Amino acid sequence: MNFKKLGKILGKILILQGILMLAPLIVAFAYKESIKNILAFVIPIIAMTCIGFLLQLPKPKRDTFYQKEGFALVGMVWIAMALFGALPFVISGDIPSYIDAFFEITSGFTTTGASIVTDITKLSHSTLFWRSFSHWIGGMGILVFVLIFIPESNEGSSMHLLRAESPGPQVGKIVSKMKVTTRILYLIYLGMTVLEVLVLMLDKPIAGYESEHLFFSLLTAFGSAGTGGFGFIPGSLESFHPFSQYVVAIFLILFGCNFTLYYLLLIGKVKDVFKSSEFRTYFLIICAAVALVFISLLTRIEQFPQSYTAEESFRHSLFQAVSLMTTTGFTTTDYHVWPTLATTTLLLVTFIGAMAGSTSGGIKISRIIIATKGAYINIRKLINPRYVPKVKFERKTLEEKTINDVFAFITLYLFLLLLAVLLLSLDPINGQAVTVTSDAGTYTVEHGFLSNFSAALSCLSNIGPAFEAVGPYASFAGYSAFSKIVLTFTMLLGRLEILPVLILFNPKTWKKI
Amino acid sequence: MNFKKLGKILGKILILQGILMLAPLIVAFAYKESIKNILAFVIPIIAMTCIGFLLQLPKPKRDTFYQKEGFALVGMVWIAMALFGALPFVISGDIPSYIDAFFEITSGFTTTGASIVTDITKLSHSTLFWRSFSHWIGGMGILVFVLIFIPESNEGSSMHLLRAESPGPQVGKIVSKMKVTTRILYLIYLGMTVLEVLVLMLDKPIAGYESEHLFFSLLTAFGSAGTGGFGFIPGSLESFHPFSQYVVAIFLILFGCNFTLYYLLLIGKVKDVFKSSEFRTYFLIICAAVALVFISLLTRIEQFPQSYTAEESFRHSLFQAVSLMTTTGFTTTDYHVWPTLATTTLLLVTFIGAMAGSTSGGIKISRIIIATKGAYINIRKLINPRYVPKVKFERKTLEEKTINDVFAFITLYLFLLLLAVLLLSLDPINGQAVTVTSDAGTYTVEHGFLSNFSAALSCLSNIGPAFEAVGPYASFAGYSAFSKIVLTFTMLLGRLEILPVLILFNPKTWKKI
Repeated sequence: MNFKKLGKILGKILILQGILMLAPLIVAFAYKESIKNILAFVIPIIAMTCIGFLLQLPKPKRDTFYQKEGFALVGMVWIAMALFGALPFVISGDIPSYIDAFFEITSGFTTTGASIVTDITKLSHSTLFWRSFSHWIGGMGILVFVLIFIPESNEGSSMHLLRAESPGPQVGKIVSKMKVTTRILYLIYLGMTVLEVLVLMLDKPIAGYESEHLFFSLLTAFGSAGTGGFGFIPGSLESFHPFSQYVVAIFLILFGCNFTLYYLLLIGKVKDVFKSSEFRTYFLIICAAVALVFISLLTRIEQFPQSYTAEESFRHSLFQAVSLMTTTGFTTTDYHVWPTLATTTLLLVTFIGAMAGSTSGGIKISRIIIATKGAYINIRKLINPRYVPKVKFERKTLEEKTINDVFAFITLYLFLLLLAVLLLSLDPINGQAVTVTSDAGTYTVEHGFLSNFSAALSCLSNIGPAFEAVGPYASFAGYSAFSKIVLTFTMLLGRLEILPVLILFNPKTWKKI
Repeated sequence: MNFKKLGKILGKILILQGILMLAPLIVAFAYKESIKNILAFVIPIIAMTCIGFLLQLPKPKRDTFYQKEGFALVGMVWIAMALFGALPFVISGDIPSYIDAFFEITSGFTTTGASIVTDITKLSHSTLFWRSFSHWIGGMGILVFVLIFIPESNEGSSMHLLRAESPGPQVGKIVSKMKVTTRILYLIYLGMTVLEVLVLMLDKPIAGYESEHLFFSLLTAFGSAGTGGFGFIPGSLESFHPFSQYVVAIFLILFGCNFTLYYLLLIGKVKDVFKSSEFRTYFLIICAAVALVFISLLTRIEQFPQSYTAEESFRHSLFQAVSLMTTTGFTTTDYHVWPTLATTTLLLVTFIGAMAGSTSGGIKISRIIIATKGAYINIRKLINPRYVPKVKFERKTLEEKTINDVFAFITLYLFLLLLAVLLLSLDPINGQAVTVTSDAGTYTVEHGFLSNFSAALSCLSNIGPAFEAVGPYASFAGYSAFSKIVLTFTMLLGRLEILPVLILFNPKTWKKI
């Protein structure tokens, strides 16, 4: 293990995080917050800068790193970022428990959006900003960003990092140089975020929050860009005007797309975008999911307490389907009380997630397509053992290794999900009733299997809200410290797509090569 | 497709099923049942014999068959058996709807034990016998049985059949000749069933059913041997004496073992049995599951309505863990009201199932072990790309193809499960309340996601009872005809381990070679 080189990059990341923390610090100053809130960012910034410089002092003998080091580095960096990123919550006193704060910021960086905050109105502006900003930072991946600063020579090493941090079964460079690729992707990401803020500003402010129009537009854009979904006022986006809800839904669909598609658009290859089978499948699944939820709401309207108009039914169907499929987790209404067809559809799309190479979580559509094609190949081989598969995906022949890796990934995904559910079932909270108040009224739900199952799935797929006792209008606060740590690791496993986290637990990773 | 050869074997199977139906016919005579009950078996026996002979008339040009024909044949035979096997229920009037009867007998043959019968006391003795007997027939697989009658020359063809029908990732012959292997396995199966009947007869009869002692012992043994679990009196095995409940639990553990282990025992290779890593894992998981459920019952005793003694807690923990892990589904108490840790454990073991080469369903322990080892290999390869895996399973080096097949199987298992859940969510019954009466009292549960999820899992893993509205004291009767057909196919997919059913839907299967 090339510890010195790893330390060097980790140091860079910590300093970068220090720089990024200047943003919430400015917010703290702008809103004239207390000295505690200002120190909440100043102390971590100083700490990270000092440690960051110290880590960069030893000179590594080898300037490249191997695949295992790339994967382990990604795992370590994300944990380190969360360990420091949790500090502002604790120091400001907004989230006094460190484990809670660690859960919350990991939920932020992994763009999950699951929260242990029970009263969101008590958080300061700077804390709210840092929570939502962490979605934006984590969405595209921070190590990929650091690639821009790594010397040109390490093309191979950078590729290891990109492979480990980027979501999806295959990683491609869109232009020959890694650095240029990264720069283009980040510019697109930044551009789209700014665009969303501007469009949201066109709407009139939310009643009662007139002075917060820009602030809320920013936080909403951070949450959508990273497909994170932390709320910042009670009821998530429930009190947003329909215009803004539609805008967010559309931007969520856009942020659920593979970012290389935007590059293709930029260079005028519009046809290539529509030739992408993952894009077409993504679009089809969204349409199907929205249709199923919408039909379910229209035909079973008597079964749930909210009385929607047809437009409201459509808007909420669109919003919830898109929000859960892109694994964002913003809500506009309490979908927990919806009919079974609607909730089942919402639960199933969270398994799938959006496109690979987007900021969303879940298994990813490309993996679903590859697995389905793989199953088809297996049946063809059974019919004719001499069958030589020439199945294509995105105009390239699907290699057997890719298919097998996808099968392995989905199997591990299921195993980890079930393991997390088992660990959550040890929590003493199980069996306890939770009272939920939402636009559907006040009702009681019980902590049990479905709460745990959906909580684990929600964290593994980086969604946020789940069902039952951890539904859209409840919080994860009731879980024990042990459960919270389990869920924190589940979020990391989901965001980093399992291997960069698991590799840290293998002793062979730490041996000298 | 060698249709004539397929017809020949299908014909043999139908005649065999006709012979097997003589058993419930004898029961009908013995209990002096009405002419309707006698005709219920006589008509199908005549029909199957005639069709069976007709199918054998054309002389096939080729006497062997290829892999795809073997797999397709297995799928077709099981569907044909269920189509004819459902007739007695309809003709006797015990289950008037053909779709219900088709569901019930498929549930029998696939050793699921899910039932649409709402009042078990109204069924005749012959119907009860045929239901439970179908577990025994389906447990070891009927095609494998027919292998005994196929000429020696077709060793290759027989192997295709065995591979398609036997549960588990690998199929081995224990002696060089297929036929001898099959004969030995069936003798062990028969011997153990007889032994269970004899041991059950040692107990005193159940109060109120004194005259049925032998009859019930037979049905119980059929249900345990096939790990099926159809009940025959209200409350499954609730009214059985503790002695019998322990006996059944022990036999369930035995029937969840790979039958080749018994052969090893018979020829004195006792050490080899304990060297089997699948056997040791099986034993460990049973112990862990029983322990978790038992602890859960002891520590959360105030949370559920039944007040057990310590012995009762242990007995029910043992029984339910074993019954669900071996995917049998017999119950001794209403586990649905148990604490979350207990129900979660029970739900998770149903994913796993027992050993490959047993009569149980589920993913099977060997697949779980192989997948775990496969995941380990993937991490090792990430650490060192030149790593050459020499991972062993049951003293043989694990081939990459085996690992990849297991990953593919588990992925498909998950996909089919979720597809079934989505289809069930279309059922109009969702949202309706169901009143359940059990030893835990009377309570109301709602048809919703958890009912559908557990129903689909229960059918795919061939268990029987599920949770919520289709829990151990409820029935599948409320589902629509469409849902019942979906679940019937889910049971077949589970029992035949997916591919023999899916292959029937590929047009290439039906092309001439």
